[in-house]
Amino acid sequence: MTTLDELGEFGLLAELERRGLAQGIEHDAALVEGLVVTQDALVEGVHFRFDLLNWRELGARAAAVNISDLAASGADPLALFVSLGVPGKTELADVLELYAGLNERGVPVRGGDTTRAGGVVLSVTALGRAERVPGRAGAKPGDAVVVTGPLGAAGAAFRAGTLPPVPDRIEEGKQLARVATAMLDISDGLARDAGHVAERSGVRLAIELEHVPLVPGAELDDVGFGEDYELLATTQDQLGFPVVGRVEEGEGVGLTLRGEPYRLASWDHFR
Amino acid sequence: MTTLDELGEFGLLAELERRGLAQGIEHDAALVEGLVVTQDALVEGVHFRFDLLNWRELGARAAAVNISDLAASGADPLALFVSLGVPGKTELADVLELYAGLNERGVPVRGGDTTRAGGVVLSVTALGRAERVPGRAGAKPGDAVVVTGPLGAAGAAFRAGTLPPVPDRIEEGKQLARVATAMLDISDGLARDAGHVAERSGVRLAIELEHVPLVPGAELDDVGFGEDYELLATTQDQLGFPVVGRVEEGEGVGLTLRGEPYRLASWDHFR
Repeated sequence: MTTLDELGEFGLLAELERRGLAQGIEHDAALVEGLVVTQDALVEGVHFRFDLLNWRELGARAAAVNISDLAASGADPLALFVSLGVPGKTELADVLELYAGLNERGVPVRGGDTTRAGGVVLSVTALGRAERVPGRAGAKPGDAVVVTGPLGAAGAAFRAGTLPPVPDRIEEGKQLARVATAMLDISDGLARDAGHVAERSGVRLAIELEHVPLVPGAELDDVGFGEDYELLATTQDQLGFPVVGRVEEGEGVGLTLRGEPYRLASWDHFR
Repeated sequence: MTTLDELGEFGLLAELERRGLAQGIEHDAALVEGLVVTQDALVEGVHFRFDLLNWRELGARAAAVNISDLAASGADPLALFVSLGVPGKTELADVLELYAGLNERGVPVRGGDTTRAGGVVLSVTALGRAERVPGRAGAKPGDAVVVTGPLGAAGAAFRAGTLPPVPDRIEEGKQLARVATAMLDISDGLARDAGHVAERSGVRLAIELEHVPLVPGAELDDVGFGEDYELLATTQDQLGFPVVGRVEEGEGVGLTLRGEPYRLASWDHFR
């Protein structure tokens, strides 16, 4: 018998898709009748700890992470839906702070569910409207690989025991969505997210790490940590965004630092 | 300081709405650009226990409960989005059973998120399309109160240590949505759900319990348990559904049994 610990999050998702039990879970965003839908769950002790962030920051982060998925689809946010599980002894004041955080980006909470649970569990579904969703399957040899901002903030912050804000890339996402052949937000780490595009598109992404912009204080390996939530797009028209690599014939992701192969750290929720 | 145990689930939702931090959470379904969106969370040890149901039944139930919310909005289901938190030692075979259950009603799982968690937590968001959503605020004095089937199954099953299937009322919901002034599914118990309509509509619902159809083996108090997932609607045109009461001027819910006042049990996730 295989456990999820052994299989990993992406292994599970692939298995569900292969059996026709779920579609597009790993795409981050699905299009239903012209609306983009994204969903993300945050579990106390797995994705966050209250010694690192407070209730308001948790709400703000949960909203921002889902809005980032909308940005990666070139969507304008319309509404959030929030499922919240909390222990019954939780203070009302804390839950009000959580919802204040959820509202910080100005996207209204239009529904959801609240319930008792052993620890805090927060699942946010975000809806947006997009003119064109690049998806992950259209990258073509010759495209440039661009990012919308410097990486490494989350990894550097993790090493320092803090948590950086999630950038708001809705406008950048809408601009890039008009021209990009593929786009996603960098949540799993640069190499792994580039790998998602490579696999779906049937191409190779050659990333030149010396061209990857880093936030102050970040080390190169921090770009493998994930949770930076900048957008990565493949496109013929770079729109002035920093170019970090090229799409080539082949498969997988090639990481080089000044011409030499380089291997970054990566992570997985189930590992 | 107030805790959620003291406030109760509905107290929390009212507080969030009053402060403008969330809209319509207690409506069960929200309308976003013509799509109906519902969300429901199931927490191990709170909403289910694996000695009462297996993984497949859990998935089937989670899907059915959300599809019931769509039925209560007169909507045709389009897609489910599933956030699943499970311990890392969970067997793949069990998770595949869960998703098989989620797919049982033929509504595709179009996305979601999976993550590690201490216990099993399942949050399902359902999207549907509706021509007309009656909502809860339109009940008018003189309307009949109808239900789409016999009640008490869940309460009777709870007493017997079993779990009844959730009825599929999509077709009935679409029929009633054309004429109903208000509609919801009976998830919190007959008296409480009737109370939601009364409060939102600014009317009184007079329920004559002797006219409430009961499933075989159910006692009258079982209709207060909730989780029957039949639809309750107020309407001038009863379409052949059983009439269990009338809408009157006033407020609240009047329960009578052969003319005498009667009080039913009720329940609350936080109490």
